[in-house]
Amino acid sequence: MSAKTLRVHIQNPPGPAGELTLSPARLAAAIAEKPALAGRIEITEASGDGIPEDLAGAEVLFMGTKFSLAEARRRAPALRWVQSTFAGVESLLKDMPADMQLANASGVHADKGGEFVLAAALMLSYRLPELAVEQAAQRWTPIFEPTLKTRRITILGVGAIGGGAAKALRAQGCKVTGITRSGTASAELDRVADLSQLDAILAETDILVSTLPNTPETAGLIDRRRVDLLPQGAGIVVVGRAAVLDYDAIMDRLDAGTLGGAVLDVFPVEPIPANDRIWTTPRLIVSPHCSVDDHSVYLDKCLEIFLENLERDLAGQPLINIVDPARGY
Amino acid sequence: MSAKTLRVHIQNPPGPAGELTLSPARLAAAIAEKPALAGRIEITEASGDGIPEDLAGAEVLFMGTKFSLAEARRRAPALRWVQSTFAGVESLLKDMPADMQLANASGVHADKGGEFVLAAALMLSYRLPELAVEQAAQRWTPIFEPTLKTRRITILGVGAIGGGAAKALRAQGCKVTGITRSGTASAELDRVADLSQLDAILAETDILVSTLPNTPETAGLIDRRRVDLLPQGAGIVVVGRAAVLDYDAIMDRLDAGTLGGAVLDVFPVEPIPANDRIWTTPRLIVSPHCSVDDHSVYLDKCLEIFLENLERDLAGQPLINIVDPARGY
Repeated sequence: MSAKTLRVHIQNPPGPAGELTLSPARLAAAIAEKPALAGRIEITEASGDGIPEDLAGAEVLFMGTKFSLAEARRRAPALRWVQSTFAGVESLLKDMPADMQLANASGVHADKGGEFVLAAALMLSYRLPELAVEQAAQRWTPIFEPTLKTRRITILGVGAIGGGAAKALRAQGCKVTGITRSGTASAELDRVADLSQLDAILAETDILVSTLPNTPETAGLIDRRRVDLLPQGAGIVVVGRAAVLDYDAIMDRLDAGTLGGAVLDVFPVEPIPANDRIWTTPRLIVSPHCSVDDHSVYLDKCLEIFLENLERDLAGQPLINIVDPARGY
Repeated sequence: MSAKTLRVHIQNPPGPAGELTLSPARLAAAIAEKPALAGRIEITEASGDGIPEDLAGAEVLFMGTKFSLAEARRRAPALRWVQSTFAGVESLLKDMPADMQLANASGVHADKGGEFVLAAALMLSYRLPELAVEQAAQRWTPIFEPTLKTRRITILGVGAIGGGAAKALRAQGCKVTGITRSGTASAELDRVADLSQLDAILAETDILVSTLPNTPETAGLIDRRRVDLLPQGAGIVVVGRAAVLDYDAIMDRLDAGTLGGAVLDVFPVEPIPANDRIWTTPRLIVSPHCSVDDHSVYLDKCLEIFLENLERDLAGQPLINIVDPARGY
């Protein structure tokens, strides 16, 4: 009796092969090293932004792009699960068939994303966004601030990136408060609160870090009223999704000088449109959605999750990194 | 028999009393808590930039300003030692009498200075100086870089700030090379080299951090030839003294785009003159000589050193933080 096999289609991003391209040869080599997978995976591959034509027989899709999963199912009726190379997959959930499973790349960003939050928190603590304004005006304005560990830091959402951020911050002696859906205590944090305590905590936060995904529950969570709860001089870091926060309210406070600065990696529209006030708001540092991705290790880490899921599928075990369509992450 | 007493003069900076003002009351209170000092210190105090008139009887000077120590001795023949609140005291050494001792504030800057180096290294690793150029031009240019721990980091001078920097960097998983006069191994570093290896190490450095003081040995150490040894895309952090490096050579490479960025806290002339190219060189971040000072704890830490030295003086023991006039630090 021959062992069950899986038909896997790799859909790579458009353009020439690069650091994020998973070649069939690379996947085959990785599979050959796993006894549970060797000889049991058939691979097809294509690249480009549209829905691939040769998806027909696939049961599993390694998806380095984004397209309609409902349409993918119509072209590949056997398609049971999808491994995305993205962590934020809200757009894929819109029309995903109910019996399809979607695994995301959550966790891949923990190291670099956590480190970026540390970098941003340090920049805000040193008031580097303010110093940039002074430099542009050729004004010599020393600002003597205490160390980061004196700052009250609040992280919204303690998933992979939030956890990585807490780890990096605590390695520098910081105390970190996390706000999570459940408010359940975590070894990664000094204090955990749930959303019912959000308003009170915002009023006592020097540096607010949002790592939250965009879900029905999080969209608009930090609205203008809540932005205005942050104390004079506070700073904001956003590495999750922009839809969670009212960016106009943030920029109004940056314009007024009542926030110390913002280091933002995500934006309501990307790329940021020409002449958008985001480009020129003082004390606002634009990182163009690259803070959490480390391309030198990105695909390796995605592949690790994918291989684990292939093994689990063949063994009839539940997959990892599965997105809950109701939660959105 | 009454115990020996010491006559101490406090010279505070000019202007209204602030975070860096040591009031006689504060010193008296600190002395009262030390059994070895209580009742044995006479205090006078003045503020201002000139040489104080009422210095005459002082044996010890707590010096929150800078003025000629030769002149101070002429006015106060009994003046034996000086506690400066500065770490960089090269200007005080110029005419210091040979039998006078000068203690500096070295060590006071270790925590914040070390943390600033981490902040600057992270900014360079994420290429934030380049992203600032792109933001100013309203260009959306994501740059995907690996984490800081993949960077080859070299620290010139491993005194208090260099040691603090190594500690902060290693807490984030970085490997750190230190270059010291002796090249003696240190528990704070992963690798230590002496100046004979400097050229070879510069050629393999992604982030160069100078914490060196300005001394006859260090002035001009990183001249144009050595600046040009740094690889394409390298970054520079300077928190010691500007005279150690050829700033024009650094700016030429920043202009040419062959250095990734520079985060500079010290400058050849301070404040930086109007229209100096330093203000506008791309990828050059100006921190106006405030990176290492944490005013919230600064005077406390100076006072700690000073009290220790008062105790040592009364006990006939050697003072700490004594500057070697030959070395300059």
